[in-house]
Amino acid sequence: MSLLQPFNEEYFMKQALAEAKKAYDADEVPVGAVLVVKNQIIARAHNQTELLTDVTAHAEILALSSASSYLGSKYLPEATLYVTLEPCMMCSGALYWSQIGKVVFGAADEKRGFMRYGKEILHPKTTIAYGIMEEECSALLTSFFEKKRKMKSIT
Amino acid sequence: MSLLQPFNEEYFMKQALAEAKKAYDADEVPVGAVLVVKNQIIARAHNQTELLTDVTAHAEILALSSASSYLGSKYLPEATLYVTLEPCMMCSGALYWSQIGKVVFGAADEKRGFMRYGKEILHPKTTIAYGIMEEECSALLTSFFEKKRKMKSIT
Repeated sequence: MSLLQPFNEEYFMKQALAEAKKAYDADEVPVGAVLVVKNQIIARAHNQTELLTDVTAHAEILALSSASSYLGSKYLPEATLYVTLEPCMMCSGALYWSQIGKVVFGAADEKRGFMRYGKEILHPKTTIAYGIMEEECSALLTSFFEKKRKMKSIT
Repeated sequence: MSLLQPFNEEYFMKQALAEAKKAYDADEVPVGAVLVVKNQIIARAHNQTELLTDVTAHAEILALSSASSYLGSKYLPEATLYVTLEPCMMCSGALYWSQIGKVVFGAADEKRGFMRYGKEILHPKTTIAYGIMEEECSALLTSFFEKKRKMKSIT
């Protein structure tokens, strides 16, 4: 990490990955997100669908709600969301409504990710970047589902 | 309404419309929803994006969260959602994850509704019905946006 630019995309994705690890430890599908405005993290969240018994409690939704509450604004055109996995249709739909400035994701999700429908799922003003720390983000998910399969085969 | 079948689709859509009217009165985009299991309404909600400063606070999302909390289950295969407007991508993505049994909507939303991407946005087990009380559901939305335009032209 350069001293001249300490807050680069990898730095924030590492923070999102730290959130994903909290989900892993809590036996939730390990996806994490941080929401950043002017190099400041204003919301952190990880998937809590099991804890909250709520399919809508994805990291992205929780981070959006938290950030809007903090800023007092439904719209987040100045914000960037860093999330370890490509957002699903629900989350990309929410990101559309928020008019978020930028979305950066790590691992791709070919099955349930929004990119199969094209980037027009997001707001026209939203820019997208992906593949940041893809291997680390993906490895955590792979490890989680392997653990789950082993647990199932034992019981 | 027949005495033999008091709880038909129109009955539940009227309840969803009553929720939409609460949104209208609160100066929110007037969309309402009820979630029904075995002819019992287990959740009622209306759009509260302004009140909660949260783009994710659509009627459908609030109804899903409430119903899952009440039933103690993330999945709602026995439930039917009645909603006055065709769900958006965010809400249909959430409905997908919930594996909801059936979705019934009133007015179509050609711009932001999920049907433009096809019904595979919902879970393969979810059935869909639409056009129930379409005119009433649509008229409330038209009236709301006309009121908004008039207010804008005065200020």
